[in-house]
Amino acid sequence: MRALRALRFRRFHTGRTMAAAATAAAAPGTAPGAAPGHRSPVLSLGTMNPAIRRVEYAVRGPIVTRALQLENDLRQGVPKPFSEVIKANIGDAHAMGQKPITFLRQVTALCLYPELLSQPSIPEDAKNRARRLLDACAGHSAGAYSVSPGIDLVREDVARFLQRRDGVAADPQNIFLSTGASDAIVTILKLLVSGSEGTRTGVMIPIPQYPLYSAAIAELSAVQLNYYLDEEHCWALDVAELRRALTEGRRHCCPRVLCIINPGNPTGQVQSRQCIEDVIKFAFEEKLFLMADEVYQDNVYAKGSAFHSFKKVLFEMGPPYSEVVELASFHSVSKGFMGECGFRGGYVEVVNMDPEVKQQLAKLVSVRLCPPVPGQILLDTVINPPQPGEPSYELFMKEKQEVLSTLAHKAHLTQEIFNRTPGIRCNPVQGAMYSFPRIELPPRAVAAAEAQGQAPDMFFCIKLLEETGICVVPGSGFGQRQGTFHFRMTILPPTEKLQILLEKLSTFYTKFIKDYS
Amino acid sequence: MRALRALRFRRFHTGRTMAAAATAAAAPGTAPGAAPGHRSPVLSLGTMNPAIRRVEYAVRGPIVTRALQLENDLRQGVPKPFSEVIKANIGDAHAMGQKPITFLRQVTALCLYPELLSQPSIPEDAKNRARRLLDACAGHSAGAYSVSPGIDLVREDVARFLQRRDGVAADPQNIFLSTGASDAIVTILKLLVSGSEGTRTGVMIPIPQYPLYSAAIAELSAVQLNYYLDEEHCWALDVAELRRALTEGRRHCCPRVLCIINPGNPTGQVQSRQCIEDVIKFAFEEKLFLMADEVYQDNVYAKGSAFHSFKKVLFEMGPPYSEVVELASFHSVSKGFMGECGFRGGYVEVVNMDPEVKQQLAKLVSVRLCPPVPGQILLDTVINPPQPGEPSYELFMKEKQEVLSTLAHKAHLTQEIFNRTPGIRCNPVQGAMYSFPRIELPPRAVAAAEAQGQAPDMFFCIKLLEETGICVVPGSGFGQRQGTFHFRMTILPPTEKLQILLEKLSTFYTKFIKDYS
Repeated sequence: MRALRALRFRRFHTGRTMAAAATAAAAPGTAPGAAPGHRSPVLSLGTMNPAIRRVEYAVRGPIVTRALQLENDLRQGVPKPFSEVIKANIGDAHAMGQKPITFLRQVTALCLYPELLSQPSIPEDAKNRARRLLDACAGHSAGAYSVSPGIDLVREDVARFLQRRDGVAADPQNIFLSTGASDAIVTILKLLVSGSEGTRTGVMIPIPQYPLYSAAIAELSAVQLNYYLDEEHCWALDVAELRRALTEGRRHCCPRVLCIINPGNPTGQVQSRQCIEDVIKFAFEEKLFLMADEVYQDNVYAKGSAFHSFKKVLFEMGPPYSEVVELASFHSVSKGFMGECGFRGGYVEVVNMDPEVKQQLAKLVSVRLCPPVPGQILLDTVINPPQPGEPSYELFMKEKQEVLSTLAHKAHLTQEIFNRTPGIRCNPVQGAMYSFPRIELPPRAVAAAEAQGQAPDMFFCIKLLEETGICVVPGSGFGQRQGTFHFRMTILPPTEKLQILLEKLSTFYTKFIKDYS
Repeated sequence: MRALRALRFRRFHTGRTMAAAATAAAAPGTAPGAAPGHRSPVLSLGTMNPAIRRVEYAVRGPIVTRALQLENDLRQGVPKPFSEVIKANIGDAHAMGQKPITFLRQVTALCLYPELLSQPSIPEDAKNRARRLLDACAGHSAGAYSVSPGIDLVREDVARFLQRRDGVAADPQNIFLSTGASDAIVTILKLLVSGSEGTRTGVMIPIPQYPLYSAAIAELSAVQLNYYLDEEHCWALDVAELRRALTEGRRHCCPRVLCIINPGNPTGQVQSRQCIEDVIKFAFEEKLFLMADEVYQDNVYAKGSAFHSFKKVLFEMGPPYSEVVELASFHSVSKGFMGECGFRGGYVEVVNMDPEVKQQLAKLVSVRLCPPVPGQILLDTVINPPQPGEPSYELFMKEKQEVLSTLAHKAHLTQEIFNRTPGIRCNPVQGAMYSFPRIELPPRAVAAAEAQGQAPDMFFCIKLLEETGICVVPGSGFGQRQGTFHFRMTILPPTEKLQILLEKLSTFYTKFIKDYS
């Protein structure tokens, strides 16, 4: 039964039951030809929200369903050509064995169970932070709702963090805490979407993209406008390409939003300051609302690369840009050195947002009451870390730097091993947590994939999973130039395991090429 | 500046800037008559998503904004006719001083900071629970994403809880954990909404309702179909009224969903088993998808009242009902005896959902990655509490029963004091956490309110707040029969404070009536 369910799921995702869905759509509510007494459900593929049907999210798509199945098989002793499934599909550091940063968890646990404040084993600065945060919670409890944009104190701490980071004033009233960055991204997109046939909002997104964007655009019935990153130049963003995509988009919709992911996901590039300035000028000239996904701001590894926030560059450019360009910048506790995905903490800072729209945003977030309070607390510890001289400072810095230097090492290792393999080309992983290597696939492999109704890189990734237990996500789930094939793999497995995995993958690829040549 | 912001917010909410919004809408993107060089924002009231503009959420609306302002004024020493603002607007037990249940917080804190597993002061059963839950987390960390429908083990525990509760089999695969019940409710509604002008999905909701429903319906551009609860019969649900609302709805949309809130919010009634059976028959006959909001299932106080789950009644009715009626039932950690709103934990169980739609649901929730893991952990402790003989059992039961018996006492106290006041009529608070008394307002008060562009009960509630510091939500935020006026007040303040508050409110009402007679 489980297998059947999973099979159905896979088939739907690979598009094979679309015909069935269309048939159902043609006759909503009734099933002509059904046996007498048969009753079709109120909610079926044919009658459900078509916008939701269009949503796709590859990072947790069919390949992951299959990986979970294989894991289950292994647990039950079914023999496989591998002894472990390695899920390199998702940026989830703790799932790959990264340990939590002690200070973060101490403060959060203290807030949840304040009886621990009398524990001599927990350092005083962690206790002081917990007391300060509990004082800012309604009823001194993490179990009370916070105000909807988030605990005032945490918003103020975020503002101070941004001021330190950018050297530019930040207003706590412009900061809205959220249930992970995903939640904030969808909320801002929701505000921006309007119009109907022909006048719908166009949202420009990079290709390759993180598929939250395409999923949200589909759900909101907006129009996805693709601009391609330049793989030949280390996935650089080129303003001429932005202009091409915009001009084309204007023929059939109203482009109003430009989304940037920096450092890039899945592509790992880090944008130069000049490029950011060019993008801001473009947004100014073309009247586009900028959405800057900056959740990997702490994950920059390459020599010569540095993170520049859109807000900092915007204010350095001065008027008129700094006075009118509308910007929403997103951050999260899920990435960086902490990798606390499970807490679903994040925020958006809005800049130059129309005050009336900001009230609408405040109203909109109030419907969901508040972001999870443990996530808000954890966010506070991240953006307001222990200071020199405080008892937790040294351990905190040691743990943080260890994570970041290991990631930098793994980023380098990844590109090195991939680029040793003929047929695989991997741009430098300058930042974020992923490599996105390009793979050549022989025409016979492409034909075999097509015969099975699969994208060629999906075909490759499924075979890779079945034979090696390595789970990566095909490039088609992120978008790529027609005729090119990629996959996304995280750099998160422990170094030794990553090395083995990369070599296994490289060997498998070489064999695959041979088999299909 | 703050005051100005808040004023704008209030004015928008009371509908006074609607004209301005309409003007802006007439000229999106340009501001005719603006000074040369003036540039209108990309995102303004006029260009934003009109569906979001229509959203309203009274529980955190303008009256709460004003309450927060008054609190701030008090803090800064501004003299007021009261010394404290009492926020009886929202079902937030911890904010009103309720203490967390020890076992729940111990287990959750242990999961967040497993170093505490060696603490002798925490009982063994809490530690065992924490170990069991950590084993079920990826990488043994609450910081990893869970699978999108929630941690398998927690879904299995929820299924066991439901089986115990209903005496009916429950399949973990039908349980989707969520970010509070609100998240799950909106997710299910999203699936159900389709169609365009004339064929849009109609969603039947009770009036008075919990405004999450109207807000979600507005956001999704569905059609809200009101059925009125019978105030004269203790807010009973009458199938004849359902039929009237449905027949009327069919003239202009496609009614497909029937939402029930039991125990009622804001109305506090508990539905009889017979009534639930009638509703199920009605849904069966009229082909409606049932959404049962059962988050107050532990909050039943009145003698002779008992909670009957829709699922239990459905399966007791047997075929054909039990085989075809599609049902989604919602639960939450925010209410009951635990009141852990800040954790944003909850779930939906779907019954008789088309398997293909269930796959779509699984896909949809995967886009948001996962519900907050601390909330999932806390949910597990709620539906899988300590058992007799375990070290934590006695304290757990004592704390739980204390909360519930105090709430029962406060429910009784509330209706008693209100019903002593001429002009106020309050139905028995059989369950949930609110009273929703009806108040007579003299014609002069109604006229004065209208002169200020306010709903008469909003006018009353604002005056109440300004003069007594008591914050309640006007009935107009929940819906009520034309010409009747109500407010919703929680029963959550500590007993002594609640008594004073009720008497103050009663005195204020009597004076208000006199002033406007």
